[in-house]
Amino acid sequence: MTKNDLQLLRGQIDEINLQILELLNKRAAIASDIGKIHAALGSRFYDPQREAQMLIALESANQGPFSNDTIKALFREIFRATLALEEKQARAKMLVQRDSDDDRTVITLPDGTEIGNGVFSVITGPCAVESYEQMDEVAAALAERGVKIIRGMGYKPRTSPYDFQGLGEPGLSIARQIANKYGMMVTSEIMDKSLIDMMSDYVDIFWVGARNMQNSFLLKALGKVKQPVILKRGLSATLEEFLYAAEYIVANGNPNVILMERGIRTFEKWTRNTLDIGGVTVLKLETHLPVIVDISHSAGRRDIAVPLAKVAKASGADGIMFETHPNPPVAMSDSKQQLNIEQFHQVMDALEGK
Amino acid sequence: MTKNDLQLLRGQIDEINLQILELLNKRAAIASDIGKIHAALGSRFYDPQREAQMLIALESANQGPFSNDTIKALFREIFRATLALEEKQARAKMLVQRDSDDDRTVITLPDGTEIGNGVFSVITGPCAVESYEQMDEVAAALAERGVKIIRGMGYKPRTSPYDFQGLGEPGLSIARQIANKYGMMVTSEIMDKSLIDMMSDYVDIFWVGARNMQNSFLLKALGKVKQPVILKRGLSATLEEFLYAAEYIVANGNPNVILMERGIRTFEKWTRNTLDIGGVTVLKLETHLPVIVDISHSAGRRDIAVPLAKVAKASGADGIMFETHPNPPVAMSDSKQQLNIEQFHQVMDALEGK
Amino acid sequence: MTKNDLQLLRGQIDEINLQILELLNKRAAIASDIGKIHAALGSRFYDPQREAQMLIALESANQGPFSNDTIKALFREIFRATLALEEKQARAKMLVQRDSDDDRTVITLPDGTEIGNGVFSVITGPCAVESYEQMDEVAAALAERGVKIIRGMGYKPRTSPYDFQGLGEPGLSIARQIANKYGMMVTSEIMDKSLIDMMSDYVDIFWVGARNMQNSFLLKALGKVKQPVILKRGLSATLEEFLYAAEYIVANGNPNVILMERGIRTFEKWTRNTLDIGGVTVLKLETHLPVIVDISHSAGRRDIAVPLAKVAKASGADGIMFETHPNPPVAMSDSKQQLNIEQFHQVMDALEGK
Amino acid sequence: MTKNDLQLLRGQIDEINLQILELLNKRAAIASDIGKIHAALGSRFYDPQREAQMLIALESANQGPFSNDTIKALFREIFRATLALEEKQARAKMLVQRDSDDDRTVITLPDGTEIGNGVFSVITGPCAVESYEQMDEVAAALAERGVKIIRGMGYKPRTSPYDFQGLGEPGLSIARQIANKYGMMVTSEIMDKSLIDMMSDYVDIFWVGARNMQNSFLLKALGKVKQPVILKRGLSATLEEFLYAAEYIVANGNPNVILMERGIRTFEKWTRNTLDIGGVTVLKLETHLPVIVDISHSAGRRDIAVPLAKVAKASGADGIMFETHPNPPVAMSDSKQQLNIEQFHQVMDALEGK
Repeated sequence: MTKNDLQLLRGQIDEINLQILELLNKRAAIASDIGKIHAALGSRFYDPQREAQMLIALESANQGPFSNDTIKALFREIFRATLALEEKQARAKMLVQRDSDDDRTVITLPDGTEIGNGVFSVITGPCAVESYEQMDEVAAALAERGVKIIRGMGYKPRTSPYDFQGLGEPGLSIARQIANKYGMMVTSEIMDKSLIDMMSDYVDIFWVGARNMQNSFLLKALGKVKQPVILKRGLSATLEEFLYAAEYIVANGNPNVILMERGIRTFEKWTRNTLDIGGVTVLKLETHLPVIVDISHSAGRRDIAVPLAKVAKASGADGIMFETHPNPPVAMSDSKQQLNIEQFHQVMDALEGK
Repeated sequence: MTKNDLQLLRGQIDEINLQILELLNKRAAIASDIGKIHAALGSRFYDPQREAQMLIALESANQGPFSNDTIKALFREIFRATLALEEKQARAKMLVQRDSDDDRTVITLPDGTEIGNGVFSVITGPCAVESYEQMDEVAAALAERGVKIIRGMGYKPRTSPYDFQGLGEPGLSIARQIANKYGMMVTSEIMDKSLIDMMSDYVDIFWVGARNMQNSFLLKALGKVKQPVILKRGLSATLEEFLYAAEYIVANGNPNVILMERGIRTFEKWTRNTLDIGGVTVLKLETHLPVIVDISHSAGRRDIAVPLAKVAKASGADGIMFETHPNPPVAMSDSKQQLNIEQFHQVMDALEGK
Repeated sequence: MTKNDLQLLRGQIDEINLQILELLNKRAAIASDIGKIHAALGSRFYDPQREAQMLIALESANQGPFSNDTIKALFREIFRATLALEEKQARAKMLVQRDSDDDRTVITLPDGTEIGNGVFSVITGPCAVESYEQMDEVAAALAERGVKIIRGMGYKPRTSPYDFQGLGEPGLSIARQIANKYGMMVTSEIMDKSLIDMMSDYVDIFWVGARNMQNSFLLKALGKVKQPVILKRGLSATLEEFLYAAEYIVANGNPNVILMERGIRTFEKWTRNTLDIGGVTVLKLETHLPVIVDISHSAGRRDIAVPLAKVAKASGADGIMFETHPNPPVAMSDSKQQLNIEQFHQVMDALEGK
Repeated sequence: MTKNDLQLLRGQIDEINLQILELLNKRAAIASDIGKIHAALGSRFYDPQREAQMLIALESANQGPFSNDTIKALFREIFRATLALEEKQARAKMLVQRDSDDDRTVITLPDGTEIGNGVFSVITGPCAVESYEQMDEVAAALAERGVKIIRGMGYKPRTSPYDFQGLGEPGLSIARQIANKYGMMVTSEIMDKSLIDMMSDYVDIFWVGARNMQNSFLLKALGKVKQPVILKRGLSATLEEFLYAAEYIVANGNPNVILMERGIRTFEKWTRNTLDIGGVTVLKLETHLPVIVDISHSAGRRDIAVPLAKVAKASGADGIMFETHPNPPVAMSDSKQQLNIEQFHQVMDALEGK
């Protein structure tokens, strides 16, 4: 055989490619009609039994050279592509997915503060609410720098049942009083759906912790609240799982979700977690939801807070969260990663380019 | 200097070692007395402010050659050891920890079936309850081999809100009917504490899924139920976190916890998760609770079920869980990892040494 | 539309499926002829430029409903399947892949000892050769139990350049003398291809450490030696990468490769690494090469050596390697994981079912 | 007992703390003298047998309340601290460690270009050298933007032995010609120490790939060359292991090492690796060596190159490396992550704040 043969054979392949293309699209158009019937009948698009039948038919018709396994693998890809097309036509797409460059969710808080509007947001405050004085001292510093959202946990998830679990409702009440005093918004972690009603009296933004990212009962319940929800990425959640978790909230009625990257668990020991900044840049491509970065939990150490704050800003994220405590060494939790007031000012200076 | 000098200096070190030893123990004895006062006063053992003061005093007294950082690090170790001693004396130890070689929790189900008694337990059944017929077909096979515990989810945690989430209470009702028909016990996943009352009518053993391993509100609530609880290890939970999660249940009143290793998330792609069999052997050293192995989720593929069942048994685990479905290719979830009836028999044969 | 319409549309889909099937196989047959021309011309099968051209042609012909992205994705799958077919026909398959259930490589050492013949092999000895006396004491114990292969490193890879790097050639000489005294085979780590000639005088089985699993220059050079090679899995190598690394050796002329699973790096801290026993069972399906399990490095602690040895045997692996030292607490490396002589006997007892 | 008792007991603890402090420092001073004798005798500081003896003596003297295990753990910390002190006094410290804020290694290339001098360096070029024309087209674009260092592999590590392994010496020769034509410096990967001499004729900066980060024979050999060495972090190397690998080169005589973070292997699939930007900020604290970021391999996708370039700059890194190819879709390797010329300009624009 010669190079001429090669040319000839390639022409035949080109021809077959176009025939396959035509059949694939014809097939997709019919499948789309089927999808409409399914939608009308209220039945599911995905019908594994039907797929199994089609594969059996193909298998018995296959005469090679492709093996049955290869044929089945190729058709499974075709099925998947078709299914995706049907679902897209019925539901348009995943609600959290971004359509276009300027498709951006901007969240407006009761006091008019916006998140996701292009201005870099700062959320800080102590890990947990410990006392009125502690919150007051932090809030005074925040007010000085124009920070509008203060954090403070009333309920704190802990690895050990014997560790400090938060002050509960009294802690939330303190947070509310302090926020009112300084004209701030409060964000605090919601750990169980049974707490939603009570916490709604105190909290302007709920946040879901990493341990609860896939607690679908909680996520669904937060789809019904009026407050925005910050959803923290699970310790070892993929970005895909993260977006699906957000979809649980949005699909249940609450469009105001903010994604928070807080570091993933890896083998590295010199940081508490590994900040997945590449993931942040991918999220900004994939979803219209605001994305913020927790530079405290992702690092677990305060000595890199300043460069990480700059990194978060450079990544295109919509803001950062970090922990500020009047006296970190005596904090009841996470003492290694909380910043003191002076360090808080250093981060603010860095963000302001000073 | 000579080798004689070396001998002399080493003697001095030996002398100092013994002096330090004496002081450490004297210190521990006093700390123990302090611990008793704390316990009487109802205050916490751990007092970070007091530790901070002691470190400052040491720092200002330190004249080297050890640096302040080293001195602080060494004393933090001493503090930690002392605290551990105080806590041990007050609470004996973590409730889930094993004291001695024959310290073993044996769990007895309503029908007298035991888990953790040295006999290797088998728990199987479909991933989710799909229909009466499906459960019936599986249960008949189980009965044939003397399997006493059938699994079947009514509520199924899913990554996507658009995937099949389980039949709910009707599914649990089917599972109960089938179990009653064949004289079996039912285990099913509990996803939220609000479901406990209802599910208690149907289920003999609750299980907590990997996504909820650190849902402390759920764990605490399960400390109040009468049924045993299977606790699945979180996707990326350390063994230490796993034991602390079990401690939440036990410390809240339910001693009947069964730990389930179900694979951890790693970079490897040819298995769905990585079965941490070394972790199983460590758990058997550390805790008196029964430990079972989920060979379905840890593998994500049925073609290695037989060797994994043998591995689980060889590891010293108390049993296995796996998924059996009459027709895995059409299962509504996890179709790649469910065994068909024939494969179920192969696993049973392997366990029986056939 | 009605259910009858559904039936009709499904019939059309079935028809199209068969047409696509026929075109795919026709396309594959032509591609196979092209592959033969490539082989004759000595050119590569994979031609990215040609693929790019075909994709551009399809894109410009595509009129939907499938998007260009979906069409390109589907055709890339077809290209990949076709390429796989061509390569298979030219090279049959990856040399290390298993063809059938009884396709097994059995490796015969100079003294007739076999690995992979169905008998469970035990390889043990100290981490590193430290002295003649040390090796002698260990070898005497091994001889007592019929162990035929002794390990001992002359060159030891260390994280820090200041740690003990092995005795070098004198250490290998000791290992050889001891092996000759007791009628044993020696295995030792080869760290650089420049050492092959020298080490060949002392060593019966080379092993490649985890750090060098993808050192292709070393792997290629080991394709030229007459000794078998144990290839340790890299710290975070996928099973696929592991098999490709073995393929480097086999494709360069040395068919006698033994794969060693030695634990992968994960977040878990209570074991040094995570033994991927599921991976072992998958390797036994995928390759005809013998697979052994290093129960020392995968655990990093000796207190689980006995159950891990049983686990390895139950998994279907062909043997184990572990470290035995006369006095582990004073070993120059890996002291926490080396077994003492008594513990060596416990492992042997466990393997013999005592 | 009362609060007064508490005060009294705390006073006693304070007293004992100071006594322990004094003994620890006295012990350290003696140990330091022993260290000097060791240094004079040329023997190792670390003597595990001596440590074992001391622990046995302590164990037999211990009368509690601390358990033997706790006492041994505390003394092991004391031993470790003492050893650290001795080693510090003998060798000052790990050579790569940073002493003070302005302790920075600045590397000067033959043409006067500096790395680590506070100016952000850009290194780019194709993954592998494929042809003169390819290199020429890229270099022309680089020259336009003032990029002084071009990359291009002659030897390419590949997972499969059947993939393109690079053009070898002819490829390096092309890179050299192009660099000379445009007045640039060349960097290329060194895969085995046997290639050093030959490659020295073509290459201005060697780089060690991730797979070879712990190839100590290669690292030691690169300690003897006159060219700077870029050391890429291993796929799953901790930062500590990374610094020790650099120490191998520096301790063997070559102080001109540049660290390159290139992403670590995690479970996440939407990026090829996970860029550990937190690790970069920690490295900048721990070492005086320049640190650069590979935004191609860490991402594996070109659509996030612009934000990652900004992130790298914001992190305090000394530069970036990325891949630029005239026609990425037809590249012989890594086609998904190589930028085309236009995208190269976008990254340069972003770095210049345009």
